[in-house]
Amino acid sequence: MKNAMEGIVAHILKEHVHHLYLPCTCVECQQDVAALALNQLPPHYVRSTEGEAYIRAKYMEDQEKAVVLGALAKAAIKVSENTSHQ
Amino acid sequence: MKNAMEGIVAHILKEHVHHLYLPCTCVECQQDVAALALNQLPPHYVRSTEGEAYIRAKYMEDQEKAVVLGALAKAAIKVSENTSHQ
Repeated sequence: MKNAMEGIVAHILKEHVHHLYLPCTCVECQQDVAALALNQLPPHYVRSTEGEAYIRAKYMEDQEKAVVLGALAKAAIKVSENTSHQ
Repeated sequence: MKNAMEGIVAHILKEHVHHLYLPCTCVECQQDVAALALNQLPPHYVRSTEGEAYIRAKYMEDQEKAVVLGALAKAAIKVSENTSHQ
């Protein structure tokens, strides 16, 4: 059982990490951004690889990718304002 | 990084598994119920054990436990109607 959104957010974050105006793009900061973004997005728990593939295909449509990018951008602002390391 | 709700849902499902009118309480059916319930509940991704403890404490209040139980009950109805195994 896993939340298919975790893989989707990681994929789109990797694609756009240098577009998010993050002062720091270290693994810690990227994980903070991913966690905050995931908390804004509806979870999609799946129990099979077919289930995950279905959700991933749905989220590869431009409109859904834009929703995820929007959540990442909001999360990046919060992390930029409050970086968890010095 | 993990969704603190996974542990909370598992804990409350364990407490109430025999109260949910499930025709079958095998591990498969319980995982199906947990996944469907998690998809109804706001995710709480955390990046530390302190973060997880904070969310768990919040969800140990009666009102929050009732919200999780409600999601489990709805999920149990769906799983009862559509058991993933014969």
